[in-house]
Amino acid sequence: MLEELKKIVFEENLELVKKELVIYTWGNVSGLDRESKTFAIKPSGVDYDVMKAEDMVVLDLEGNKLEGKYKPSSDTATHIELYKAFPEIGGIVHTHSSYATSWAQARKDIPAFGTTHADYFYGDIPCARPLTKEEIEGEYEKNTGLVIIETLKKRNINPMDIPGIIIASHGPFAWGKDAKEAVHNAVVMEELAKMAYRTIQINPEIKSVEQYLLNKHYFRKHGANAYYGQN
Amino acid sequence: MLEELKKIVFEENLELVKKELVIYTWGNVSGLDRESKTFAIKPSGVDYDVMKAEDMVVLDLEGNKLEGKYKPSSDTATHIELYKAFPEIGGIVHTHSSYATSWAQARKDIPAFGTTHADYFYGDIPCARPLTKEEIEGEYEKNTGLVIIETLKKRNINPMDIPGIIIASHGPFAWGKDAKEAVHNAVVMEELAKMAYRTIQINPEIKSVEQYLLNKHYFRKHGANAYYGQN
Amino acid sequence: MLEELKKIVFEENLELVKKELVIYTWGNVSGLDRESKTFAIKPSGVDYDVMKAEDMVVLDLEGNKLEGKYKPSSDTATHIELYKAFPEIGGIVHTHSSYATSWAQARKDIPAFGTTHADYFYGDIPCARPLTKEEIEGEYEKNTGLVIIETLKKRNINPMDIPGIIIASHGPFAWGKDAKEAVHNAVVMEELAKMAYRTIQINPEIKSVEQYLLNKHYFRKHGANAYYGQN
Amino acid sequence: MLEELKKIVFEENLELVKKELVIYTWGNVSGLDRESKTFAIKPSGVDYDVMKAEDMVVLDLEGNKLEGKYKPSSDTATHIELYKAFPEIGGIVHTHSSYATSWAQARKDIPAFGTTHADYFYGDIPCARPLTKEEIEGEYEKNTGLVIIETLKKRNINPMDIPGIIIASHGPFAWGKDAKEAVHNAVVMEELAKMAYRTIQINPEIKSVEQYLLNKHYFRKHGANAYYGQN
Repeated sequence: MLEELKKIVFEENLELVKKELVIYTWGNVSGLDRESKTFAIKPSGVDYDVMKAEDMVVLDLEGNKLEGKYKPSSDTATHIELYKAFPEIGGIVHTHSSYATSWAQARKDIPAFGTTHADYFYGDIPCARPLTKEEIEGEYEKNTGLVIIETLKKRNINPMDIPGIIIASHGPFAWGKDAKEAVHNAVVMEELAKMAYRTIQINPEIKSVEQYLLNKHYFRKHGANAYYGQN
Repeated sequence: MLEELKKIVFEENLELVKKELVIYTWGNVSGLDRESKTFAIKPSGVDYDVMKAEDMVVLDLEGNKLEGKYKPSSDTATHIELYKAFPEIGGIVHTHSSYATSWAQARKDIPAFGTTHADYFYGDIPCARPLTKEEIEGEYEKNTGLVIIETLKKRNINPMDIPGIIIASHGPFAWGKDAKEAVHNAVVMEELAKMAYRTIQINPEIKSVEQYLLNKHYFRKHGANAYYGQN
Repeated sequence: MLEELKKIVFEENLELVKKELVIYTWGNVSGLDRESKTFAIKPSGVDYDVMKAEDMVVLDLEGNKLEGKYKPSSDTATHIELYKAFPEIGGIVHTHSSYATSWAQARKDIPAFGTTHADYFYGDIPCARPLTKEEIEGEYEKNTGLVIIETLKKRNINPMDIPGIIIASHGPFAWGKDAKEAVHNAVVMEELAKMAYRTIQINPEIKSVEQYLLNKHYFRKHGANAYYGQN
Repeated sequence: MLEELKKIVFEENLELVKKELVIYTWGNVSGLDRESKTFAIKPSGVDYDVMKAEDMVVLDLEGNKLEGKYKPSSDTATHIELYKAFPEIGGIVHTHSSYATSWAQARKDIPAFGTTHADYFYGDIPCARPLTKEEIEGEYEKNTGLVIIETLKKRNINPMDIPGIIIASHGPFAWGKDAKEAVHNAVVMEELAKMAYRTIQINPEIKSVEQYLLNKHYFRKHGANAYYGQN
């Protein structure tokens, strides 16, 4: 039943390697089947070069394993919280991609410095606060999801307008309407993180772009009046 | 009639990918047929790996589509303004290449720090001012072209002597006598942006080179007394 | 008898090239056979692209050559000191990988800035003090080993918890339970060095992460209560 | 007679591309035949991907062309001055490799920050002074050679101990006993420039290493008491 989803999730996990967002087992992608409210996710700690589509693990949103011989990604509980909180989301990606992780480690938002950013992210990419000692020693991965949700709520962000976040001292999560879009957004976030890094080295005084430039570029590609692409 | 031009424009769009100036659909190349005053340009938002030569869109300089099943690049109006203002130009490239875009986002000219720069660009590569709210909310892509033209005029720059520019908070445009030369100049601009970035990290006090060094290297390769190459 | 070990050590030396940790002959890997207390190591100054498994040199821990037509790596004496001091170690890697060497040249510890680091290294990666004139002019390579041992002892570090170090003005050493794990740790150290470099450029005020985050991530992957991966 | 030399010089020019020291036609290698006091050099502005061994140009040390249908590299006069001044040199390389050129553009010596540097260059790699207006407007390429010679003499440097230099606002030259060694040194110089760049970003206060560390590493690989490698 979920063979197609498992295949897509598998392929998008490999796409992370191709796009050089992960080395070794440093990432995971999941994809949701909305109808059955189940999702497929990468198994934990399995090498990308031996992994097969059938190795993807299928779970429900209570975390019960429905299919698969392996344990799911250790970050599964984070994925579950996001799927439960944001029904628009159909795919989630976590990586330790180099530039986005560097911003996360620096505990700074990735500023919206230009139109490349505005084409995909409608404002600064937030850096969520560090988890507390209690959150870390408790249900750590679940709490990671809750801190992401808290951050978006506090800043009044629609998750489909800013489809990604970085966690302080940890790294990036990205999402989208499905696994493919989530991976696309993860790749874009890494490019934006790289250019933002260089931008502040050239001009440490530079600020995020004006709201009207954000509006123009974001809505040129998204929403009812979009005119980018062939639609 | 324009099959050859479409083929060249297609190949030069792919060259952007090979030279790693673009990912996904983040760039576009056009090439002009001077006699017919029509140009071929990349379609909007079509993936590089499925795109064919016949997908190139042909338009006249009033923006009327003459050939092609796709919508042209969303930046078409910028290309048109440049072709109309500068008759020497036969090819235009727009990318979000990483280092040039970082300078654009930092809102700084790319300084002429050495002979590599002087071999191709006869002076600092200007950063055009940010567009105003009105310019952005109006005919945005056309106004982008007009701001490029304004910048060159104000600084008294011959577009063939400095065949490229960066737009504040946006990214680079490059041009040349044809699409091939325009892409070549875009690649060079990215290399210059990269080296200039590193140069100011090593020595934040460094200034653009002296005029006589610019003269020597630029005219060693360009103009009547050039002695570089086999001509 | 040691054919299998020589093959592994050979392959792991090549893995350094594949992972782009070395160019030319700038690195060496050794692997220990615990039972016979002998180890195989790369020959000195032999090109990676002509090197064969049979070219690995086998020595005992007194430095006597047991097998091999070539002279062993000039850093052999460093490997011997580490094997003698730390019985848990079964593989050692030395490279001049770019980012780790840059931290070594800057004479700074590589700070534990995030969970990527904590997954592998249980704290900052120490920068050992520069060797003295006497240590350099005496048994230099042996003294390099002794300074590594001194550093771990002084800081009360278990070498399996922080499986790598950088030497001031020199470069990184990494180790593990065998040659394969040692190379894995060397690759990870280079990634951590790269992200730490970028982290301090974004936020020069940032400090190493809190102890409880280190604990969480390190023990999620290591020791009796590990729950990462399939074990 | 010089077929073998032309073949080597051709291959070493291609090696520059493989090692990513040059794009387009941004570099040249020459190699000297000591007996006949003639040298082979890359033709000017010929693309690397169409160039053949037979396209190499052969000249004597007065600059007379002896063989070849093309004009020699525009930097030929620089090569000639170096061959005339330093009889130990049998190969010369000029590139615009990114990091070395960035140091040149910053007008700073590349400091000897560690053992990687000391293995090849016995001290800081000097940045030669900018050429004067008169030197640039006169016999520019010849004067570039003379400024290199002046710099080595003034600093009392044996060209075989520090087989490379950078020219202010221009880029690197490297040399060696033959074309192959010269290219090897050019690759190493670029690596050293890259690591030195990162080193000063991590620790702006860092100084060049102590003389005794330079001595140890340089003479471990060079001269009568060398013990690195198989000789």
